[in-house]
Amino acid sequence: MAVLLYDNPVSGNCHKVRLIFGLLGVEFERRELSVVDRSDRAELLGGLSPSLNVPTVVLDDGRPLGESNAILWYFADGTRYLPDDPYERAQVLQWMFFEQYKHEPGIAVVRFWVAYAKDPPPAAEIEARRTAGRAALEAMEGHLGDHEYFVAERFTIADIALYAYTHVAEEGGVSLEPFPAVGAWLARVAAQPGHITIDD
Amino acid sequence: MAVLLYDNPVSGNCHKVRLIFGLLGVEFERRELSVVDRSDRAELLGGLSPSLNVPTVVLDDGRPLGESNAILWYFADGTRYLPDDPYERAQVLQWMFFEQYKHEPGIAVVRFWVAYAKDPPPAAEIEARRTAGRAALEAMEGHLGDHEYFVAERFTIADIALYAYTHVAEEGGVSLEPFPAVGAWLARVAAQPGHITIDD
Repeated sequence: MAVLLYDNPVSGNCHKVRLIFGLLGVEFERRELSVVDRSDRAELLGGLSPSLNVPTVVLDDGRPLGESNAILWYFADGTRYLPDDPYERAQVLQWMFFEQYKHEPGIAVVRFWVAYAKDPPPAAEIEARRTAGRAALEAMEGHLGDHEYFVAERFTIADIALYAYTHVAEEGGVSLEPFPAVGAWLARVAAQPGHITIDD
Repeated sequence: MAVLLYDNPVSGNCHKVRLIFGLLGVEFERRELSVVDRSDRAELLGGLSPSLNVPTVVLDDGRPLGESNAILWYFADGTRYLPDDPYERAQVLQWMFFEQYKHEPGIAVVRFWVAYAKDPPPAAEIEARRTAGRAALEAMEGHLGDHEYFVAERFTIADIALYAYTHVAEEGGVSLEPFPAVGAWLARVAAQPGHITIDD
């Protein structure tokens, strides 16, 4: 039995999971859920993930797991994509929590509103989110000025977590031009052997 | 040299760290930062935490770490408060990411706006956040109807992460009365040997 991925093709959070699956050669089936009409979420994901979000996976033994970064951790642990050192592992988590709390609401949510939502909020609210998103990119830029990757000077799931929505940030009207170190890092991630795009 | 905790006494995210430190007997010094006036954050936390949030810690060897749930993980790993089983560890992360993405914005942020902020947003925005907070509590209630704790049927850092702002949710005008299983779980957490309150 293959892993089942509750998925959406435009979701960066889902792209994270497809990326690690591609890198590790995990076999999986995709079941597409809408990110616009969530009316079937409780029926399909109730009991599988507390947030009712995609991605949610059902492992090959039938056990469910939600939250993109928890799924990354589960599959990457013991591989080259997650360090063994306790402090480096905590740094991976630091950047993944930063991604969900500081980056995703200003970059991913804005992209969703601009490109996909049926009833986006007022322009002032969108612009306030963009400002928050730029602050997250500024923090990344500061780190990447001195580092090739986020943790342990090598490509890890911290990079996958941050790559997913950063590389499509401009679809939400957040320019990456002021962040050249971020741009160079995006190119390094995309050049990883086994990399797949969000459209693959 | 003791661990240095950049702290705030009313922050639930900081309470998480003081809780695990109390349970584990970690010696630490507190340095209080304002959660209302953040103008000194870049100066004090720049280079220590990408989010510039409290809590941030500086370990006894001088290395910094930000994000409350990453700090919980770092200190709890190898202790009774974080399971060894890979799937249970992923479930701990699932609930901690749920906490930061779904729970904190609807419970902690509302409490901050109502009880501490100088310029809270309009009432409609506060009420929309409360609705999101209640959805998070509903997800917790569903899980706690069948379980004593969130993961592995014992007290872990997933409980600590979710306890911190849940137990003060009513300070933000979100009643816990509709969530009796949550209420019973809060009492179980508070009864843990070594528990300290947010005011300790």
